[in-house]
Amino acid sequence: MSRELSARLLGELQQLVLIDPHTHINPHAPASKTLADIMGYHYYTELAHSAGMAKHRIEEAGLDPKLKVGRLVEWLHHLDNTIQVSWLVELCRKFFGFEGDRITPANWEALYDRAAKKMAEPDWEDQCLTQSGIERVFLTNDFDDPLTGFNSERYIPCLRTDDLVFHLAKPEVRQRLAKATGHEFTNTLGLKDSIGKLFEHFKKHGAKACAISLPPWFSPRNPGLSEVRGPLHRLLANEALSAEEALRVSEFVFWTLAEYCVEYRLPFDLMIGVNRRVYREGVFQGQDLFDQRVSLIQYQELFNAFPQVTFPISVLAQSSNMELVSYAWIFPNVVLNGHWWYSNIPAYITLDCRSRLQAVPRSKNVGYYSDMYKLEFAWPKFQMYRQVLSQVLAEDFVIARGWTEEQALDLGQQVLRGNVEAIFGV
Amino acid sequence: MSRELSARLLGELQQLVLIDPHTHINPHAPASKTLADIMGYHYYTELAHSAGMAKHRIEEAGLDPKLKVGRLVEWLHHLDNTIQVSWLVELCRKFFGFEGDRITPANWEALYDRAAKKMAEPDWEDQCLTQSGIERVFLTNDFDDPLTGFNSERYIPCLRTDDLVFHLAKPEVRQRLAKATGHEFTNTLGLKDSIGKLFEHFKKHGAKACAISLPPWFSPRNPGLSEVRGPLHRLLANEALSAEEALRVSEFVFWTLAEYCVEYRLPFDLMIGVNRRVYREGVFQGQDLFDQRVSLIQYQELFNAFPQVTFPISVLAQSSNMELVSYAWIFPNVVLNGHWWYSNIPAYITLDCRSRLQAVPRSKNVGYYSDMYKLEFAWPKFQMYRQVLSQVLAEDFVIARGWTEEQALDLGQQVLRGNVEAIFGV
Amino acid sequence: MSRELSARLLGELQQLVLIDPHTHINPHAPASKTLADIMGYHYYTELAHSAGMAKHRIEEAGLDPKLKVGRLVEWLHHLDNTIQVSWLVELCRKFFGFEGDRITPANWEALYDRAAKKMAEPDWEDQCLTQSGIERVFLTNDFDDPLTGFNSERYIPCLRTDDLVFHLAKPEVRQRLAKATGHEFTNTLGLKDSIGKLFEHFKKHGAKACAISLPPWFSPRNPGLSEVRGPLHRLLANEALSAEEALRVSEFVFWTLAEYCVEYRLPFDLMIGVNRRVYREGVFQGQDLFDQRVSLIQYQELFNAFPQVTFPISVLAQSSNMELVSYAWIFPNVVLNGHWWYSNIPAYITLDCRSRLQAVPRSKNVGYYSDMYKLEFAWPKFQMYRQVLSQVLAEDFVIARGWTEEQALDLGQQVLRGNVEAIFGV
Repeated sequence: MSRELSARLLGELQQLVLIDPHTHINPHAPASKTLADIMGYHYYTELAHSAGMAKHRIEEAGLDPKLKVGRLVEWLHHLDNTIQVSWLVELCRKFFGFEGDRITPANWEALYDRAAKKMAEPDWEDQCLTQSGIERVFLTNDFDDPLTGFNSERYIPCLRTDDLVFHLAKPEVRQRLAKATGHEFTNTLGLKDSIGKLFEHFKKHGAKACAISLPPWFSPRNPGLSEVRGPLHRLLANEALSAEEALRVSEFVFWTLAEYCVEYRLPFDLMIGVNRRVYREGVFQGQDLFDQRVSLIQYQELFNAFPQVTFPISVLAQSSNMELVSYAWIFPNVVLNGHWWYSNIPAYITLDCRSRLQAVPRSKNVGYYSDMYKLEFAWPKFQMYRQVLSQVLAEDFVIARGWTEEQALDLGQQVLRGNVEAIFGV
Repeated sequence: MSRELSARLLGELQQLVLIDPHTHINPHAPASKTLADIMGYHYYTELAHSAGMAKHRIEEAGLDPKLKVGRLVEWLHHLDNTIQVSWLVELCRKFFGFEGDRITPANWEALYDRAAKKMAEPDWEDQCLTQSGIERVFLTNDFDDPLTGFNSERYIPCLRTDDLVFHLAKPEVRQRLAKATGHEFTNTLGLKDSIGKLFEHFKKHGAKACAISLPPWFSPRNPGLSEVRGPLHRLLANEALSAEEALRVSEFVFWTLAEYCVEYRLPFDLMIGVNRRVYREGVFQGQDLFDQRVSLIQYQELFNAFPQVTFPISVLAQSSNMELVSYAWIFPNVVLNGHWWYSNIPAYITLDCRSRLQAVPRSKNVGYYSDMYKLEFAWPKFQMYRQVLSQVLAEDFVIARGWTEEQALDLGQQVLRGNVEAIFGV
Repeated sequence: MSRELSARLLGELQQLVLIDPHTHINPHAPASKTLADIMGYHYYTELAHSAGMAKHRIEEAGLDPKLKVGRLVEWLHHLDNTIQVSWLVELCRKFFGFEGDRITPANWEALYDRAAKKMAEPDWEDQCLTQSGIERVFLTNDFDDPLTGFNSERYIPCLRTDDLVFHLAKPEVRQRLAKATGHEFTNTLGLKDSIGKLFEHFKKHGAKACAISLPPWFSPRNPGLSEVRGPLHRLLANEALSAEEALRVSEFVFWTLAEYCVEYRLPFDLMIGVNRRVYREGVFQGQDLFDQRVSLIQYQELFNAFPQVTFPISVLAQSSNMELVSYAWIFPNVVLNGHWWYSNIPAYITLDCRSRLQAVPRSKNVGYYSDMYKLEFAWPKFQMYRQVLSQVLAEDFVIARGWTEEQALDLGQQVLRGNVEAIFGV
């Protein structure tokens, strides 16, 4: 009974057209052109490398796309158990008429050609979105993105701020900031102004969120200006900062971002817990990991200081989910946001989805985002989430608590779509 | 088959009359008088506030109880997914003849009146306990509670010691202590004696446990008297203590409590992991959270030093459950105690219950306590636990390990009731 | 359907003959002689002690084996819920014709005698292995083990190195090292040479891994020789080392082991997270626990520095599993290895098995090892794992992802056996 019920709920939830609230889509090239764009997604390159494929076979300069796919396919039999490869197979079946259950050295080439032909159709982007049931897509824009030349009804800008908070000591970052704002800052006030100009620019172009990913050791605080002046001076002089000095600058920029989120009424997406470049010889985007010893208690000052700002929060470690549930249960401005990266597999989504639906107000739960780089991934990733969600709704709500199917669907629709509209104001 | 089996076990377990081994019941006013008493439980106020309800709408001075309920009901549709609201609906259905599945602006007032009428019956306290299948209830008493004027067969005193360990620097706490013991302590020995007097008083009035909640950073140790004397002197002089000095005093008082638990043969309930006042503008009792970075290794000296004391332990973070299971598996004096606060939702209880039943001697497992403030909550909370327990017994014992239903029920009865009797000596 | 399917998969997986990649078998006395050998396994003594049995009743000098079993049996009714006792009952049913479901004061003596008779058969070792479906067994050898006098086709040596890394300050450890290598080292280079000789010896005798268990606070690094010389000198002079100095020596020895793993092409099994002697009055081998606050980030330098070494990793805390999954997903040289000790119960294996199969290349997953001290335990422990594995394969692969049963079995066989052969080169 549970299985039929869950399938029925899934069927209904698949009808709902969605807004994807966090992606890395390039709005100037949102869809793939070949399977190399699709299989170039770091999940496949890093897993193939993890299984033994040499990095240079993947990242060789000038590598022909088709050759690259052929090489990756040789390693897929080591990865076919992974949910990530199931996304690949599912999207090939949905979009490219693939009928197998494995992509192999024997069948990949025909698939490659068929896919390339399909993706060459001039309206492929539209087709893909329509078939995927996605109508709007949040972007992750560099702070100096001009935000022009794309359909801003469909693609919603989002100000990504990692570079500002953690890499302001790099001259090129400051140069980009100067160019974007028409102003070279020389002190704390000037830096604040420059950041303000970015918010103004983004807000004018329809941005719906400010976002950042944060290492596990970061703990936001509002440093006094006197603490920041010295380090900022030295940074502007291109002197090497101590770890403590660099932290003062990061704290200052971060706190300034939160202040502008108040002024510009933007949610501040926090993606908490990633250590960058842990595996230094890893493939592109396949080097980052984490330290589970992180706590949302590190954010208590922030949450207390900015009651007017909504913080949609993603955590990287599954062991952080319970804290996230509890903080969202208590703090009005803390909101659940999707299932991030290493947590984005059915085993963990199931545990997390269940606790979130049982303990956090339903209006504070953004169920899922795809985090995709190319549009073709929205469908299989959201589908994975919908399957988990349907099962949890069936078991925990309809069966265990006697809800009607309509009530359960209503809850499902709210976390899949309604809350994205309400929380991000789209 | 699993579902029918589980329902059968649940039916049997519901017959068992229970002792509730940890509550916050006021024995002078154990039952509610109106729905405002019930919906004033911090779970509803904090969740409504988390969903957007302004604090002053809840905590306005002199707010009429009925008006307060009406205001809270306006927010229930944001919370109806939570297990906490399901407790509310279930108790209204059980006790007050409520027939709906949602409490809404359209139906709450009739419910309010019906409930008030029911609760005005002179024997409501008895009715409620009988219908709930509860015969004895542990209290959480301030150290200066006179412990008189209530039925001490039904309500079992328990010495709560947070104030002594963490707030002795407050003059009012010391005044309360002086009044309760008839003695103003002026040094470490005097403080020991005062604490001893409290144990004597509580033991004489039938106390069955000493209890405390502890922050994640606390690590019990036995400080030398020489380490404590200075800080205690400064404390008595109302001088401000450094964090280190305050910690010495806390360690000393805590260790003294454990020593008296030996002398007075009392279990020492440890509720480990809460940070107080994390959300400073939160509603009453809706401000506390936690830091998952805590370990029972912090308690190794305590567990080694006091083999004669039983420590029933509750952990706040679900990620601490595995440590708790492992420490209870190894240390004879470490006992499992219920599912506390943020861990008290079916998603986490299921995981925790399963591991506890698989790996810890059955005699060391106190399955559940309600933690209630008003008697009406025992039934829905224990019922939630019984549902999880029945399912785990069905799946992990009867189906997976071939136990008979009688064997499974026997295990269920032991963790629900037998161990409460054996461990607390009631 | 799920249950029948899972039972079918289990039936097939039971046919597979296995290699057990981590045990504590003594190859000179691999099988038990009486139930006392079996019930002397620390799981039973520590659980009985935890439930209240006095340590001296278990560890009394010269205690008659049969008397010891009789005493332990008196406590089994407190433990019969544990999965560990289910192993005991299952092996008695399988090997000794036991027909009950509980071992009790009324039936244990007949069982004891029947078991003793069975185990006295001259080919009991062979019978036990054949019935258990085990053909080769990894050992855990002291670094000074001569590695002779046993069937090295069946029993595969493994160099255990805890003593070298953490106890070199003990004169007896250095004496054992001198005796084993025929050389007393007097400086860092001499120590390196001595360790090299151990590798040579072990490799010559067919060792297939180097192994160590590590405390949660350890973080491998390559200390400069200049950092190590002083501490090593003082150690050789039997002076007491500070914690920092001792750590330098540990780091140096550990790093040297990794270097020799390159040279001798041996996988380096890391068993991460155990604190020794936490419960100081515990029974033999029943004193160790852990601190969940550990992270694989502590191993990042090691994993980066030794890309040529395969690190099969076991973690003690279940909360570490997600890090392990993620690190194995990214680092080519990090491999999953079994379900260790406190994590080795169905509740945790299920969660861990599920995430591992969903997110790590299938070729990097060593599903299980028994960790046994006596051969009789391989069967019930592997059987417990096979039951979990079958259920995960049924639910997550056949049902949720539409795999054929053959595909699912193929995956199951790879993690049960194929990867042991491929990763350890047996």
